Amino acid sequence: MITDVFCKIINKELPGDIVMEEDSWIAINDIHPNAPVHILIMPREHIDSIIALKDSDSDLMGKLIIAANKVAEKIGLKDKGFRLIINQGEHGGQLVPHLHIHLLGGKRLGKKIAFED
Amino acid sequence: MITDVFCKIINKELPGDIVMEEDSWIAINDIHPNAPVHILIMPREHIDSIIALKDSDSDLMGKLIIAANKVAEKIGLKDKGFRLIINQGEHGGQLVPHLHIHLLGGKRLGKKIAFED
Repeated sequence: MITDVFCKIINKELPGDIVMEEDSWIAINDIHPNAPVHILIMPREHIDSIIALKDSDSDLMGKLIIAANKVAEKIGLKDKGFRLIINQGEHGGQLVPHLHIHLLGGKRLGKKIAFED
Repeated sequence: MITDVFCKIINKELPGDIVMEEDSWIAINDIHPNAPVHILIMPREHIDSIIALKDSDSDLMGKLIIAANKVAEKIGLKDKGFRLIINQGEHGGQLVPHLHIHLLGGKRLGKKIAFED
């Protein structure tokens, strides 16, 4: 049984601040934002992480990226731009074991896109 | 006529340090790395950026993410993890107008995933 916090939000067992949703995905505000806008886009289907994607998941994965575009447009980030981040494993810093895309924006983000704490 | 630097590398008009390639994409080392490993994965087909993706591009876009997994596995990053980043527009800091995914790894990347310079 899958019990990660995102599954619980998707299944309405926990509250989530939903920004937008469609049949295959939901987008929620991150509770610890790293930028003026910090939204998480995730599939409703439980997939642990990007390395758990099968070749047959390519269309679903692409839909999640296009979903991020739709969210960005809805909240007015399309013109100024934004950044998408997917973290994998220890070095990437993935915190919740349910595939998700970070959508960041609302200010000019740094040029250096990877860094130590 | 499309003349961005990535199209020139794809078309062999400019040299590129190719790490891996398949029919629909190539992966090259970034010439200004921000981490011990910094690779760019891009479609051979010219697409300006993620906001230029059409709904019908979802499978191609998903294949690019799965391509990043394959590159990470080839170069030994799969176990320790890695980070994928896609920059869009001015706030995201996209520098080359040809859709590309940054694959970063080789060390533990910072927890703060967006920041000012």
